[in-house]
Amino acid sequence: MNYKLILAYDGTDFSGWQRQPGRRTVQGILEEALAKINGAPAAVIGAGRTDAGVHALAQAAGFRADLRLTTAKLHRALNSLLPDDVRVTSVSVAGPNFHPRRSARSKVYRYRIYRDRDVSPFLFRYVLHWPYPLDLKAMRTAARLFVRKDDFSPFSSNRELHPVREVIRSELRRSGAEVLYTVEANGFLRYMVRAIVGTLLEVGRGRIPPERVGELFQGKKRTLASPTAPAKGLCLVKVKY
Amino acid sequence: MNYKLILAYDGTDFSGWQRQPGRRTVQGILEEALAKINGAPAAVIGAGRTDAGVHALAQAAGFRADLRLTTAKLHRALNSLLPDDVRVTSVSVAGPNFHPRRSARSKVYRYRIYRDRDVSPFLFRYVLHWPYPLDLKAMRTAARLFVRKDDFSPFSSNRELHPVREVIRSELRRSGAEVLYTVEANGFLRYMVRAIVGTLLEVGRGRIPPERVGELFQGKKRTLASPTAPAKGLCLVKVKY
Repeated sequence: MNYKLILAYDGTDFSGWQRQPGRRTVQGILEEALAKINGAPAAVIGAGRTDAGVHALAQAAGFRADLRLTTAKLHRALNSLLPDDVRVTSVSVAGPNFHPRRSARSKVYRYRIYRDRDVSPFLFRYVLHWPYPLDLKAMRTAARLFVRKDDFSPFSSNRELHPVREVIRSELRRSGAEVLYTVEANGFLRYMVRAIVGTLLEVGRGRIPPERVGELFQGKKRTLASPTAPAKGLCLVKVKY
Repeated sequence: MNYKLILAYDGTDFSGWQRQPGRRTVQGILEEALAKINGAPAAVIGAGRTDAGVHALAQAAGFRADLRLTTAKLHRALNSLLPDDVRVTSVSVAGPNFHPRRSARSKVYRYRIYRDRDVSPFLFRYVLHWPYPLDLKAMRTAARLFVRKDDFSPFSSNRELHPVREVIRSELRRSGAEVLYTVEANGFLRYMVRAIVGTLLEVGRGRIPPERVGELFQGKKRTLASPTAPAKGLCLVKVKY
């Protein structure tokens, strides 16, 4: 059977999604739990390989195994074996051709910027604290310029063979003391969202004029590199199939 | 000067409020930060000595010191020295007779019970997970019986010389997947809220009829002892002066 999982996790205490020897990773912990249920190793594939400290409200993942369990029982069994900072929120049986990453049409990430003076102790793990002035109008203008199909290498640390991605949504909105940046694309390069957010913050501080964002794409590498925004403000909120 | 502080903290990684050698406590960490600002030790008094794992939205505290700082600067200095899981939310100068504990008219605690199957990884530190049936009507009836001025020793682990407390509010309400218990009293014995919640859960499970809650007060000790509810669901939400 080809199983599909939806997962939520608090990325704070994880070294990211991807299995690494000697590290606490979401994939690693999930595969350990599955191995106990399955009685044999099972490889879990995630839709997005979130970095250390990045959170997920609805990561999608999948694995193939022949289990003599209903999906409801598998759901309960997984959550009873997993630690509290990662939860399975849905288990289903997918079609034979379903692949968590390749079948995904798009992914949605959200980045939270907290602007008030003091961040609540219940919030600090999930936001970037930015108690300084920001020109939101300029940031909104800049955000729209990321809606494009282009080579996003200038916004990634890695050199990839196929660096073209299509961003179909890139917008900022205020929500109380927060500024929320939402971006949807058919795929993301490594650090891409955090590099975009870093650029938007440079625009918000007046260091980059918004209309120059287009030029950054011509560089092909991060020559006009902005600081990469910290991981903890970022969350994978949805994978669309 | 006699200073008054309002504090919020995530109790998860604290061994409670009260200073203890070799332990990470809120009082201890606050006194360390103050000593750096003050240049000499300063004793901080809290309104409520919350136990290990108990949270606070608005704990009140106070200390006496002669600082050459405005309250705004003291506020910023404290938060720059304190770790992210404790935040000062307000600093003011109180009258000379203000005492954080003795001047308090009442304190309000809230306990969160989460009833759905899966607790979000962003919530588990703050709720008791109870995915089992509960008779809320019986619990509400029982909750009202705690509104009284009485010897609360049956709901405390400690023997105290003056164990009479007056509870002026004790109520349950539903909020989404949660049941919230709110209790306000002129003071609380050690473990009192958690012992009351433990009793309410026994009522909700049908193990204690609600009308028998009154009898528990006659025992003077916890002969009919219910389990003490876990610390993490509890939060000090307000201190009234």
